[in-house]
Amino acid sequence: MAAMHLVASDPLEAMTAGIFEAAGTPADLAAEVARHLVSANLAGHDSHGVIRIPAYLQQIESGRLAADGRPVVVHETAATAIVDANRGFGQVGAAHALQVAIGKASSAGAGVVSIRRCGHIGRLGHYAETAAAQGFISMIVYGNMGPGTGLTAPFGGARRHLGTNPWSFGVPSGETQPVVVDFATTVVAEGKVQVARAKHAELQPGQIVDKDGHPSTNPEDLYAGGMLLPAAGHKGYGLSLVASLLGAGLTAEEVPDNGVGAGVVVMAIDPRAFGALETFTATIDNLSAGVEAVAPAPGFEKVLLPGGPEAASRASRRANGVPIAPDTWDVISGAAAKLGVAVAPLLA
Amino acid sequence: MAAMHLVASDPLEAMTAGIFEAAGTPADLAAEVARHLVSANLAGHDSHGVIRIPAYLQQIESGRLAADGRPVVVHETAATAIVDANRGFGQVGAAHALQVAIGKASSAGAGVVSIRRCGHIGRLGHYAETAAAQGFISMIVYGNMGPGTGLTAPFGGARRHLGTNPWSFGVPSGETQPVVVDFATTVVAEGKVQVARAKHAELQPGQIVDKDGHPSTNPEDLYAGGMLLPAAGHKGYGLSLVASLLGAGLTAEEVPDNGVGAGVVVMAIDPRAFGALETFTATIDNLSAGVEAVAPAPGFEKVLLPGGPEAASRASRRANGVPIAPDTWDVISGAAAKLGVAVAPLLA
Repeated sequence: MAAMHLVASDPLEAMTAGIFEAAGTPADLAAEVARHLVSANLAGHDSHGVIRIPAYLQQIESGRLAADGRPVVVHETAATAIVDANRGFGQVGAAHALQVAIGKASSAGAGVVSIRRCGHIGRLGHYAETAAAQGFISMIVYGNMGPGTGLTAPFGGARRHLGTNPWSFGVPSGETQPVVVDFATTVVAEGKVQVARAKHAELQPGQIVDKDGHPSTNPEDLYAGGMLLPAAGHKGYGLSLVASLLGAGLTAEEVPDNGVGAGVVVMAIDPRAFGALETFTATIDNLSAGVEAVAPAPGFEKVLLPGGPEAASRASRRANGVPIAPDTWDVISGAAAKLGVAVAPLLA
Repeated sequence: MAAMHLVASDPLEAMTAGIFEAAGTPADLAAEVARHLVSANLAGHDSHGVIRIPAYLQQIESGRLAADGRPVVVHETAATAIVDANRGFGQVGAAHALQVAIGKASSAGAGVVSIRRCGHIGRLGHYAETAAAQGFISMIVYGNMGPGTGLTAPFGGARRHLGTNPWSFGVPSGETQPVVVDFATTVVAEGKVQVARAKHAELQPGQIVDKDGHPSTNPEDLYAGGMLLPAAGHKGYGLSLVASLLGAGLTAEEVPDNGVGAGVVVMAIDPRAFGALETFTATIDNLSAGVEAVAPAPGFEKVLLPGGPEAASRASRRANGVPIAPDTWDVISGAAAKLGVAVAPLLA
């Protein structure tokens, strides 16, 4: 593998925003998308970072993604709302929905917001981190389902029917880092199967099945019609199903007749509705410190809080720059140059 | 194993209510606990059914459980509340909290309710079923944590620190059965390790570790200071942690100084806040039917919706009676006789 380039996060974010502005996105929305993508790189989740720029540009060109789509609240009650993302950037729709949910939580104690006509919302943990930084508990869930949808079989099934249908939760804290949980409901991400395939390596048992539903450890089987398995069997399947039923059910305008549905649901809870914020955050601090103090198992250095690896990556990459593979960089910087946007300088 | 006794569910419920009334529980609360326990038996979850009667009687005798503890709302906003269960039956506290959450959801669109000073709340799926039958989406979570708490190690840890910290979700439907998800965040329930130990059988790898955190398949190791592992590693750990942080954080009156916390959180969402109920339930029906139509994997008869096995068990046991092991029956019927309560007749 060629050595990675290093780019400082601020110029990378400015370049990313510039690219989307040049492609027709209003400045405030472009800034939101750029902030989200570079924040995913900073957190160490490069699969949800600037590597997505070319695909988004292509979706704008094909008309699938409305570069200037601005989310609006189309229906609301004291503690709920429906946001229509108007086929715009998912990061913009979800960031808006989160602030609507936080507004509801501020006034009513809790807020549940669904999002219609929304592009790819990126890394779910981003919203949980944002809510925690504002002092709110959050839950973010995205689900899609239907015959041939995604790469995942339902528990006991032998057909692709579910997306990776991730869940994320954020809990604000005082002095310890906020707890941010963010996971796909499959055993492994498809990206890891790709990596094993490229290396001609075997997978661990229990991660995939072949096209007929037989257990397999051969990554090729996934790409020959095979399926990812839900994490922890019926448990991950249950979470995946609830994600897509809520996503589809709370955004439905018409009843589907083909078993296909998808959507996003964002929830916020104000700890202040349950007592003093300081009591809540100090309780989280004490309990979190207790978990971190648990003696590690053989092979582990220490017990980590969910969100800990991301916080460590953020500190390191802010200081040292974001690593980007040369071929990815060529595509992104090429797109910037073509659109007349200043290319961020390389640190290395 | 001796043949199981069979008892019709209605007389079993009457006998159970009679026992708790005789032990000092007001009639309405005793009826709630009895309904919950027998409903767990009907659903096929005998570990959360009438087998618990002797332990509850013992807790009443020792003063740990207040037989007449009646839950009250001690604080509320438009979409949230805190219920104090007054050290009464958890089933009573949680049933009350669920109705408070449903009331909030009816008026504000969503409701989040935490429960303080609450006994064992039994089978979480019971509340999700109840909410779904009333037309509400629900989430129920219980968590406890702290040094030496429960049998579960945090991911990467080698000490007992977490309970089984279960999650449950319910989604109402129209003509298909409601989807009810209910699972512990450990790979296996402790009861299954007990069964393997009694049979001198090996466990599957990945379910437990020994007292030093080394992988083990010997059930004896769990009882020699070993630990259950979280389901799907860091994913189950994340859910377990969020369960206990929310449970403790949203019920805290004082900040703990020892890393110990616990509590229950119940949430309800009114689908009507997002559109016509018929659109929601027909969408769920269509998506659920689509999942059930997926071709089964080898070794499976069909793809089941979560909650399906419980519905099948309920139909069968209502018709044929609830099976109860003779030694369990001896203890329960003995307690009834001692308290002057009529013993339900055996069907077999």
